[in-house]
Amino acid sequence: MSAPLRLGIAGLGTVGTGVVKIVQKHVELLAARSGRPVTITAVSARDQMKNRDADLSGFDWEADPMVLACRDDVDVYVELIGGDEGIAKDSIEAALRAGKDVVTANKALVAIHGQELAVLAESLGRVIRFEAAVAGGIPIIKTMTESLAGNGITRVMGVMNGTCNYILTRMESAGLPYETVFEEARQLGYLEADPTLDVGGIDASHKLAILSSIAFGTKVDFDAVEIEGIERVSIDDINRAADMGYKIKLLGVTQMTGRGLEQRMSPCLVPADSPLGQLQGGTNMVVVEGDSVGQIVLRGAGAGEGPTASAVMSDIVEIARGVRLPVFGQPASGLRNAQPARTAVPAAYYIRMELQDKPGALAKVASILGDAGISIDRMRQYGHGEDDRVPVLIVTHRTTPDAIDHAIELLPRTGVLAGEPVELRIEDL
Amino acid sequence: MSAPLRLGIAGLGTVGTGVVKIVQKHVELLAARSGRPVTITAVSARDQMKNRDADLSGFDWEADPMVLACRDDVDVYVELIGGDEGIAKDSIEAALRAGKDVVTANKALVAIHGQELAVLAESLGRVIRFEAAVAGGIPIIKTMTESLAGNGITRVMGVMNGTCNYILTRMESAGLPYETVFEEARQLGYLEADPTLDVGGIDASHKLAILSSIAFGTKVDFDAVEIEGIERVSIDDINRAADMGYKIKLLGVTQMTGRGLEQRMSPCLVPADSPLGQLQGGTNMVVVEGDSVGQIVLRGAGAGEGPTASAVMSDIVEIARGVRLPVFGQPASGLRNAQPARTAVPAAYYIRMELQDKPGALAKVASILGDAGISIDRMRQYGHGEDDRVPVLIVTHRTTPDAIDHAIELLPRTGVLAGEPVELRIEDL
Ligand SMILES: NC(=O)c1ccc[n+]([C@@H]2O[C@H](COP(=O)([O-])OP(=O)(O)OC[C@H]3O[C@@H](n4cnc5c(N)ncnc54)[C@H](OP(=O)(O)O)[C@@H]3O)[C@@H](O)[C@H]2O)c1
Ligand SMILES: NC(=O)c1ccc[n+]([C@@H]2O[C@H](COP(=O)([O-])OP(=O)(O)OC[C@H]3O[C@@H](n4cnc5c(N)ncnc54)[C@H](OP(=O)(O)O)[C@@H]3O)[C@@H](O)[C@H]2O)c1
Repeated sequence: MSAPLRLGIAGLGTVGTGVVKIVQKHVELLAARSGRPVTITAVSARDQMKNRDADLSGFDWEADPMVLACRDDVDVYVELIGGDEGIAKDSIEAALRAGKDVVTANKALVAIHGQELAVLAESLGRVIRFEAAVAGGIPIIKTMTESLAGNGITRVMGVMNGTCNYILTRMESAGLPYETVFEEARQLGYLEADPTLDVGGIDASHKLAILSSIAFGTKVDFDAVEIEGIERVSIDDINRAADMGYKIKLLGVTQMTGRGLEQRMSPCLVPADSPLGQLQGGTNMVVVEGDSVGQIVLRGAGAGEGPTASAVMSDIVEIARGVRLPVFGQPASGLRNAQPARTAVPAAYYIRMELQDKPGALAKVASILGDAGISIDRMRQYGHGEDDRVPVLIVTHRTTPDAIDHAIELLPRTGVLAGEPVELRIEDL
Repeated sequence: MSAPLRLGIAGLGTVGTGVVKIVQKHVELLAARSGRPVTITAVSARDQMKNRDADLSGFDWEADPMVLACRDDVDVYVELIGGDEGIAKDSIEAALRAGKDVVTANKALVAIHGQELAVLAESLGRVIRFEAAVAGGIPIIKTMTESLAGNGITRVMGVMNGTCNYILTRMESAGLPYETVFEEARQLGYLEADPTLDVGGIDASHKLAILSSIAFGTKVDFDAVEIEGIERVSIDDINRAADMGYKIKLLGVTQMTGRGLEQRMSPCLVPADSPLGQLQGGTNMVVVEGDSVGQIVLRGAGAGEGPTASAVMSDIVEIARGVRLPVFGQPASGLRNAQPARTAVPAAYYIRMELQDKPGALAKVASILGDAGISIDRMRQYGHGEDDRVPVLIVTHRTTPDAIDHAIELLPRTGVLAGEPVELRIEDL
C-alpha cells in the first residue's frame, strides 16, 4: 500500500466537521478504496476554542489557512471556508503554488473565479475538484464530466437550492404566504446569512453556471445567467398552478442554441407528476439530456453535513487513487467563451391576472394575446372575486418569451386589468 | 496531445454499432474530453456482409475476436458480443494477456466470472470496465465505486430490467393479463432469445450481484441471489395493489445484515407515489443508501443503442484519460467472500386470497396470522366473488419473511381457503 494521502482541512463548519468525521469513521474503507490511507495533518478555523462535535486532538491546529495551505506535510488542501473572495481564494492559490491539489465545496468561488483558478492549477499540474459545490451529495459533476463524456449535452435542468424548494413546498402544504414561510426558514437556520443568496436565486445560479461550463465546454459565465428568485411567488400562484396540474419550482435551465448559450434561473411550472414536480423539501434534482443517453435524472440531498461531506470525500478518494482530470473535464485553456443569449427557446406560459368585472373583458385580453401571436391552451375564470375583480388563469401554447413580454406590456391598454399580471414559464420536460 | 487511444470492437449488434457511431460523430468532443483522439482500429462480428447502419469502411475487419483482441495496434478491447462463456470470456482473457485494457457491457459474464477476470486483470496491471453492464445509461457503477467511496453503503435497490417493467406497467395501463403482454413484448423484440433471462429475473439479478460486490467489498456472488421472476404476477394483483396505493415492480435489493449478505430479486409492492412506483415502461432506477449521503436516486434508460453505448464510451474515455481503478473499486484479491443470508429483514407484506363464503372465514384467517405473530395493518374484502368465493386483501405490519411463510403454510388448515394465497413483499423505501 502506498504512502498516506495527507489532508489539510480549512473550515470546520457544517461541511468541514462532516469530512473530519468520515475520515475518522471509515479508516479501513477509505484505505481499501483509495489504495492508501487517508489522514488529516492539520485543520484550521477562526475559533480554536469552539466546541465542534468532532475530536480534533490528533491534528495540528493552524490559525491561518494560508499557512495550512503551504505545509510540507499536506498533500491536499481542502477549502471549506466559503466566500468568493478573500481567504478562500487566496489560500487555494497559495496551495496550488505550493504544489498541493485542492478540494473545495465553494460554488460561489468556482462560479466566479473557476476559470482563472483552473488555468492556474493546470499550468502547475495540479487538480481542483468541487463535486460538493453543486447539488451536495448528488454526483452531478462526475456524472457530467465523466459518465456522459461520450454525449453532446443538449440541456441541463435542476432544482439546486434546497431552501427555496423547502419554502415553495411548505407554502403549498401549509397554505402559508411567502413571508411567513421565509421567516420560519430563517428561524430554522435554513437561510444563508445573506438570504438573497438563496431566495434571490444566486446560489442556485452559481451551480447552474458551473454545470453549463462542463456541459458545453465554455468558460463559466455566471454573470450571463438570467436570474429571478422566488420572492414574487405567491401562495395564489402555487394554488392556481396546482389546480392546473403543476408545481412551481425554482428551476435552473442551461442549453446551447444556435443563438448562443441560454442560462436561466427562475420560478417555473412543471407537471405535478413529473420527477421534478414531486420533489419535496430540501431535496435536489438534476436532469441532464445527452444526444446518446437521452434523459438522466439524479436526485438526493443537496446540502447538509453528511451529503456534502460525502461529495468532498469522493473528490479526496479520487486524488488518493491518482485520478487527475482537468478541472472542468477538458483543459481550461481550451474552453470557449460562452456567447450568452437571452432566453428565446419557446415554452408554454402560465399567466394569472385579475380583471375588472366588465362585459367583454376576457375577449379584450384574448385579442391582445392573439395579436401577439399567442394561442391559448386553457383558460379558467374563478367566479367573481372581491371588489368586482375576477381572477383569470391562462395557459398558453408554446410561444416565445418575447411574445409573452410583448403581450404583458400591451395588456394594460385593454383597460380591464385590476392589478399586475403574473407570468411564469412552463418548462418543457 | 497524446497518441490516439485505439479500439478493437468485437460485436456489432445494438451496442457495438452504437459505439461506432459515437466515435465517428464526436471526434472532436472525445479528443477534447479525453486529452487524445479516440480511434477504431478494427472490428469483428459473425457476418461481414450484414448491413449495419454504420460506416465500417475505415476499419479493418477481423473474423475472429481472438485475433482482434491481440492485435498490436489495439489498446482497448471492447467486448460487445455477450454470453457468460465462450468467445466473450476467451477473447477478454486473451486481450488482458496481450496487455490490453478491456471494456464490456456483458453483465452475465461479469456476474459469473467477474472475480476471476478481475484478479487476472489486476495481476497483469490491466483494467476492465463495465459501466454499461448495469442499468444501461445510468452511471451506477461509477457512482458507487467513485462518488460514494466515502460512504458505508447500507442498501441498494433497483428496477434494472426494462422489459419486466414494461410488461408490468403495460399490464396495468391496458388491463391485460401477463400472457398477452408477454406475447406483445416478444413481438416487439423486447425479450432476450431466452425470455427467462428477462421475466425470470436472471438478467436483473446479474446486475444486482455486481452492485453487491461494489457496495460491500465482497466477491460477486450471483448464485446466492434469491430470484423470483414476474411470471406469477397477475393482473388481479396489479389492480388490487393499485387499490391499496401500491405498484408492483421487479425489485432487486441487496443489503448487508448481521447475519450476512441478503440479495433478493422479486416482484415487490412499492408506494405508487414513490420514485420507484412512478417508473413507467423501460426506464430503470437505482436507489443507493449510504451512511453519509443518505438516499441517492438515479434514473434513466436501462437499455437501447444510445444509452448503452453512452455508458461504454464513458469507460473508454476514462481509459483514454489514464484513469486506472481496480475492477470492483478495490483490489479484487482483497474482496471478501460474501456470506449469503436468506432474507430476514422484516417488511410489511401484501397477502391476497380467496375465501369460501362461510361465516367466520375471515376470523379464522386472522387468527392464523395472529398465531404466527403477524399483525394486520389493513384488510379489504371485495364483496362476494364468483362461485361463493370472496376475494380478500391483507396488508400486514412489518413482520419477518419466516413468519409469513409459516402463516401461508398454516392457512389451508382453516379449511376456508378457495385457491392458493398470493404473498408479496412491500419493500421499505
Ligand atoms: N452547508 C452545506 O450544506 C453546504 C453544501 C454545499 C456546499 N457548501 C459550501 O461549503 C463551504 C463551507 O460551508 P459550511 O456550511 O460548512 O460553512 P460554515 O458552517 O459557515 O463554516 C465555515 C467555516 O470556515 C471557518 N472560517 C471562516 N473564516 C475563516 C478564516 N478566516 N480562517 C479560518 N477559518 C475560517 C469558520 O470558522 P469558525 O467555525 O471558527 O467560525 C467555519 O468553521 C461553503 O463554500 C459552502 O458554500 C455548503
Ligand atoms: N442491447 C442492450 O440494450 C444492452 C444493454 C446493456 C448491455 N448489453 C450487453 O451488451 C452486449 C451486446 O449486446 P447487443 O444487444 O449489442 O447484442 P446483439 O445485438 O445480439 O449483438 C451481438 C453481436 O455479437 C456478434 N457476435 C456473436 N458471436 C460472435 C462471434 N463468435 N464472433 C464475432 N462476433 C460475434 C454478432 O455478430 P452478427 O451481427 O454478425 O450476428 C453481433 O454483432 C451483451 O453482453 C448484452 O448483455 C446490451
